[in-house]
Amino acid sequence: MSRELLTADDVKGAWAIVPTPAKQGASDWRATNTVDVDETARMVDGLIKAGVDGILSMGTLGEAATMTYDEKLVFMQTLVDTAAGRVPVFVGTTCINTRDTVALTRKAVDIGATGTMLGIPMWCAPSVDVAVQFYKDVSEAVPDINVAIYANPEAFKFDFPRNFWAQVAEIPQVVTAKYIGVATLLPDLAAIKGRIKLLPIDFDYYGAARMDDSINAFWTSGAVCHPLVSTTLRDLVAQARESGDWSQAKAFMGRLGPTAATLFPNGSFKEFSTYNIALEKARMTAGGWMDAGPCRPPYHLCPEPYLEGARKSGRMWAELGKALENEA
Amino acid sequence: MSRELLTADDVKGAWAIVPTPAKQGASDWRATNTVDVDETARMVDGLIKAGVDGILSMGTLGEAATMTYDEKLVFMQTLVDTAAGRVPVFVGTTCINTRDTVALTRKAVDIGATGTMLGIPMWCAPSVDVAVQFYKDVSEAVPDINVAIYANPEAFKFDFPRNFWAQVAEIPQVVTAKYIGVATLLPDLAAIKGRIKLLPIDFDYYGAARMDDSINAFWTSGAVCHPLVSTTLRDLVAQARESGDWSQAKAFMGRLGPTAATLFPNGSFKEFSTYNIALEKARMTAGGWMDAGPCRPPYHLCPEPYLEGARKSGRMWAELGKALENEA
Amino acid sequence: MSRELLTADDVKGAWAIVPTPAKQGASDWRATNTVDVDETARMVDGLIKAGVDGILSMGTLGEAATMTYDEKLVFMQTLVDTAAGRVPVFVGTTCINTRDTVALTRKAVDIGATGTMLGIPMWCAPSVDVAVQFYKDVSEAVPDINVAIYANPEAFKFDFPRNFWAQVAEIPQVVTAKYIGVATLLPDLAAIKGRIKLLPIDFDYYGAARMDDSINAFWTSGAVCHPLVSTTLRDLVAQARESGDWSQAKAFMGRLGPTAATLFPNGSFKEFSTYNIALEKARMTAGGWMDAGPCRPPYHLCPEPYLEGARKSGRMWAELGKALENEA
Amino acid sequence: MSRELLTADDVKGAWAIVPTPAKQGASDWRATNTVDVDETARMVDGLIKAGVDGILSMGTLGEAATMTYDEKLVFMQTLVDTAAGRVPVFVGTTCINTRDTVALTRKAVDIGATGTMLGIPMWCAPSVDVAVQFYKDVSEAVPDINVAIYANPEAFKFDFPRNFWAQVAEIPQVVTAKYIGVATLLPDLAAIKGRIKLLPIDFDYYGAARMDDSINAFWTSGAVCHPLVSTTLRDLVAQARESGDWSQAKAFMGRLGPTAATLFPNGSFKEFSTYNIALEKARMTAGGWMDAGPCRPPYHLCPEPYLEGARKSGRMWAELGKALENEA
Repeated sequence: MSRELLTADDVKGAWAIVPTPAKQGASDWRATNTVDVDETARMVDGLIKAGVDGILSMGTLGEAATMTYDEKLVFMQTLVDTAAGRVPVFVGTTCINTRDTVALTRKAVDIGATGTMLGIPMWCAPSVDVAVQFYKDVSEAVPDINVAIYANPEAFKFDFPRNFWAQVAEIPQVVTAKYIGVATLLPDLAAIKGRIKLLPIDFDYYGAARMDDSINAFWTSGAVCHPLVSTTLRDLVAQARESGDWSQAKAFMGRLGPTAATLFPNGSFKEFSTYNIALEKARMTAGGWMDAGPCRPPYHLCPEPYLEGARKSGRMWAELGKALENEA
Repeated sequence: MSRELLTADDVKGAWAIVPTPAKQGASDWRATNTVDVDETARMVDGLIKAGVDGILSMGTLGEAATMTYDEKLVFMQTLVDTAAGRVPVFVGTTCINTRDTVALTRKAVDIGATGTMLGIPMWCAPSVDVAVQFYKDVSEAVPDINVAIYANPEAFKFDFPRNFWAQVAEIPQVVTAKYIGVATLLPDLAAIKGRIKLLPIDFDYYGAARMDDSINAFWTSGAVCHPLVSTTLRDLVAQARESGDWSQAKAFMGRLGPTAATLFPNGSFKEFSTYNIALEKARMTAGGWMDAGPCRPPYHLCPEPYLEGARKSGRMWAELGKALENEA
Repeated sequence: MSRELLTADDVKGAWAIVPTPAKQGASDWRATNTVDVDETARMVDGLIKAGVDGILSMGTLGEAATMTYDEKLVFMQTLVDTAAGRVPVFVGTTCINTRDTVALTRKAVDIGATGTMLGIPMWCAPSVDVAVQFYKDVSEAVPDINVAIYANPEAFKFDFPRNFWAQVAEIPQVVTAKYIGVATLLPDLAAIKGRIKLLPIDFDYYGAARMDDSINAFWTSGAVCHPLVSTTLRDLVAQARESGDWSQAKAFMGRLGPTAATLFPNGSFKEFSTYNIALEKARMTAGGWMDAGPCRPPYHLCPEPYLEGARKSGRMWAELGKALENEA
Repeated sequence: MSRELLTADDVKGAWAIVPTPAKQGASDWRATNTVDVDETARMVDGLIKAGVDGILSMGTLGEAATMTYDEKLVFMQTLVDTAAGRVPVFVGTTCINTRDTVALTRKAVDIGATGTMLGIPMWCAPSVDVAVQFYKDVSEAVPDINVAIYANPEAFKFDFPRNFWAQVAEIPQVVTAKYIGVATLLPDLAAIKGRIKLLPIDFDYYGAARMDDSINAFWTSGAVCHPLVSTTLRDLVAQARESGDWSQAKAFMGRLGPTAATLFPNGSFKEFSTYNIALEKARMTAGGWMDAGPCRPPYHLCPEPYLEGARKSGRMWAELGKALENEA
C-alpha cells in the first residue's frame, strides 16, 4: 500500500542529526548488539520534546559504515517507535552498491521510516551519470521512500556539481538534501527549481537564509549537545525574515560561531573528515545532554588533542544553551 | 583446526587478478544470483592450466563492492573448488567496517580460500593508526587467513606510507600485497624487511624486478585477456635475472607497454579509477579468452569512447599473446 | 612627502578589473613595447565616464606575469594620467620575491597609483607566516601605498585561511581585497573586524551582499564588456538594501548569472585558471566595447572551443547591457 | 658566433646542485648585493676538485625566485669564471614569462654559461601546449644555449606528462632534465628516444640506474654537504654496471637512504616544497663543508623543528662522507 510522499515545502526548521548511541565495549571487534537502545529512545524523545522538526540519522557520524545489518534494524525500529509520527524520521540506508541499498531501504519503509538520508556507494568515485542513476534506481525500487541527498564530498568522492542537482531534482522521491557549504548555494538553488529543500549546516544557516528566502531549514548535529541552541537559531532567523531586522540573528551567530573553532583539527575539513565520527561523538557526549558512547571499529582511534578540541566545542555549545535557558 | 600460513617467499610468479563473470542482465538492480558460475570455473581452470601461479579476486574490478553477500559465497566456493589446491586462491573480503570484514573472512576460511586480498573500509579516509589496527584486528580474529594488502589509494583514500608498511609487516598473516607504482618501491622494501612480498602490476614488473632482486612476482589483470603474455613476462624476467642479460625482457616490455596506452582515459589514473570496473571488464572480454559479462550497479555506466579504449587495450594484449604462440 | 591612506570605508561600488590592451603581434616572443596605450586610455576614460568606482589592474588577466618592466611603467602611467584622480587606481606590483615587489611598488607610488592589487610570490607555496610577512614587508617599505590583497588561490598556491586575514587586517595599508567565493565569507569578515573591504566577484555580489551588510563593493571583469551591467548590479543592490525588497536585484541576477555559464571550460575553475588570461581577453574583446588584443607569451595558447565559450559569455554580457540601455 | 651544443651523451655522472651563498643580513628586504661571491667561488672550485661532473644552479633552492637581476649576473659570472671550463655550468634563467626568460638566457650565454636549468613560468598552471611552446621559443631565441628541463611539479604547477617529454625531446637544445621520481621513468624514457639525459635525484639513482642502462647521471644537492658521498655513489653504480654485481651499490644505498629521513617534514613532499629553500640551505650549512648563508625574502621563514630535521640530514650526510674518507 502506497503512502503519500513529502514535498520540499514539508521540510522546515531544525533537523537534528543524531548519533547511534553505543554500549560500553563497542570499539572491540568482538562486540555484538552494540546499540544502546535506551539512550537512543531517550535522545529522540528529548529532541522532539525540545521542539526539533525532524530527525536525520545513520550518516557518517551515525556510523552507517560500522553498524551491522542487525544493529541497523534495531536502531531504525527504536527511532521510528519513539518518534511515533511526531516528526519525520530519516534513517540512512547507504550501502556500497545499488542492490544492497535497495534491500535496506525496503526494510526502512517496512519499519516505518519517513525517508532515507542517502549517500552514494563510495568504493569508486562516481561519475555524474552513476550518481544520478543510483538515486533513480533506488527511488524506482522503493517508491514509498522519501530521499534526502546526503551531499558529503569526502565520504562519497563526489563534488555534487550543478548538473547533478538539476537531474536529481526530477526524481519525485528526492525532497531534501543534507547540503554542505554556501559556495555554490545560489546556482544550485537555480538548478533545482524549488523541488529539493537544501539544508545547510547550522553554522551556515544564518548566511544561507540571508542569501535566499527559500532557505528555511537546516541540519544540526549540535542539537544533541543542547537542543535549545538549534531551536533558538531557527526561531531568530524566522523572526528576522518576518521583521526584516537581522541584527538579533547576526548577534546570535556571534555567540554560536566560536563553538565550532576547535571542532576542526588545525582548522582542516579534510583532517576532520578522517576523524569525523570520533570527533562528533566526543563533542556530543561532552555537551552533557546525552551519551553517544564509544565508536565502532575501525573508526575508534583518534588523537587525543583532536578529541579535546571536539569536547571543548561540545561544552561551549552546551554553555550557550544554558545561557539561553537563563535568558528566556 | 589451524592450518599453516604462507610466507612471503611462497608468493612467486604471475598472479592473475580475475573478474567476477556476470550473467546477462546483471546491470539491472532487480537482478539476483548474477554470478556466471560456469564461466568462473572455466576461467580459473584455464588460468591454472596456462601456468599462472596464484589467483587474486574480488577487488575493485572483481566487483567486491557490488556483489551481494550470497553471490560472494557462491563465487568463492566456485574459485576454491575449481582451483582444488593447485594454486593459492585469494578472495576479497573488504567490507565497510571491521566486524563485517571479520565475518566474511571467516566464511572465506570455511570455504577454503588461501587468503584475502584485503582493502580498508572506505567510508572515511583512514589514518595510519586506523589502517594498521584494521589489519591487526582482522588477523587476530581470523588467524588462519593469509592476507594480501590491497594497496589501492583511490579506492581506500589512503596513500599507504612507509610507516604503514613497517607496521603491517609485523603481522604474521600479512604475506603479500597488491602494490601500485614503483615510486616508493625501494624505501617501502626497506620498511618491510622481507616480510611481505610486494606485487607490482605487470606493466611495472620489468622495472621493479630490475630495481630489486626480491621482486619475483606480480599481479596481472591482463592474464584473462591471454595468459601466455603474463607467463612470458614472468619467464623472461626470471631468465634475465639468471643470465644477467635483460635485453630480451626489455624488448618484450617494448611490445607489452603499448597495450596499456588506451586503457587509461586521457592518460589519467584518476579518471580510470572512476570507471575501473567497466573498463577492465570491457578490456577482458575484448581479449576473447573469456567473457567477463556486464557490470553490476551502480558501476555499469561508462562513456563509450573510454570503453573503446579499454577494448583496444584488450585486443592488443590478445594479439601479443597470439604472436607469442606463433613464436613458440 | 606622505599622503593620506584610504580606509576600508572608502572602497565602495563597482571596481572594474581591466586588461592590459596589447598591440597586434604581442604573442610573439620578439615583440617589444606591446602596450596599446591609446586603447588603454580610451578604456579607462570610458569606464570612469560610465560610472565605475575604482580601477583594478595588472592581476592575472591583466598580464602582470608577462609584461616587461618597461611595459609596466608605461601602462601604469597611462592609467594614472587618464584617471586623473577621478577614481582610485590600483595597479599590480606582484613579483616573484619581496625586494623586486618593493622596488616596483615604489615606482607605482612615484607614478601616482592609489594602490597595488598585490598577490604573493608564487614560486613556492607560502606558509601563512611567509604570506603575512610579505605583506608586512612591502607595507613597511612603501608606507604610502594602499594595498588590495589579491586572493587568488590557484595563482599563489595559498588558500587564504582565516588566520591570514586576521593578521593582514592589522596592517594599516591593507584596505581591501579581491576576494573569491562566499564559502568562508562570514568567518573571514569576523576575522578582519571591518578593517578590510572584501570585494566579491560580480557574480557573487548579490549573495554576498545579502549575507552581510558590510559588503557594498565588488570587482567586475565584465565591466569592460559593457559597464552598464556592472553599475546596474551595484545600483540594484544598493536600492534593495535601502528598501529591504531584494526581488529586483534577484531578478537581475537571473539575467546576469547565465552569462557565466560558458566562461568556465567544462564548468571547471581549475581548467579556467590554466587559460584564465586568454579566456578573459577573448571574452572582453567579444563584448565589443573594447579591444583587449592578443595575449603575451607564454599564455597565448588556448583551445578554440574554450575561447568560443568565453566569447559567448562576453557577447551575452554585452547583450544584457544593450537590453539595459533600452530599458532605461 | 655560434658554439657547439652538448648532446645527451655528454651529460654523465654526478651533477651538483648548488645554492646561492648569501651574506649575513640577506633575509632583510632592505638588503642589496647579497651574493657571497667568495663562498660561491670556493664552493664551485671545491666541487670540481672533488670530482663532480657538472654544476646546476639557480633553481628553487638556488633562489632564482628571490635574487635580483643584478645579483643573478654577479652569481653567474662567478660560477663561470671559477669553473673556467673544467665542467659544464648550467645556470637558471626561469622568469615568469617568455620574454624576460629570453633576455636573461641571452645574458647567460654572454657570460659563458653552458646551459640553463629552465623551469616554466609559474603564475598560471601551463597546459602541455604552453609548456612545450615556451621551451621552443626560448630555444629558438637563444640557439646557443643548452637546456636542462627543470621538472619540478610543485613549483611549476605541471605534472610533466609523457606527451610533454615526447615533444621537448625534438628540440635540439634540450639535452638533459632535472627529473623527479621513478614512477614514470621507463615510459618517459621511451618517449624521449634517447635525446634527453634524465637526471634522477641522488636518492633515486641506484633504483633508476638498475631500471634502465641509459641512466648514468644524477643531480645531487647533497654534494655540497660532502662531495665524496655523491662521487662514491656515482662510482659504485658505474662499477656495478660493469661487473653486474650490484651488492656494493645497494649496500651503499642502505647507508645513504637514511640521511633523507628527516629532510621531509612529517614525510611530506608537499610540506617540503613550501619550505624547500630554507630546508636545503639549513641542511647544506649543517654539513659543514660550506656556508649557504641566510635565505632571501619572502622565503626566509621556516618552523624550527623542520629546520632541525634538515640540519640532521646534512650532518648525517657529512658523517657518511667522513666515514668514506676513512674507508678509502
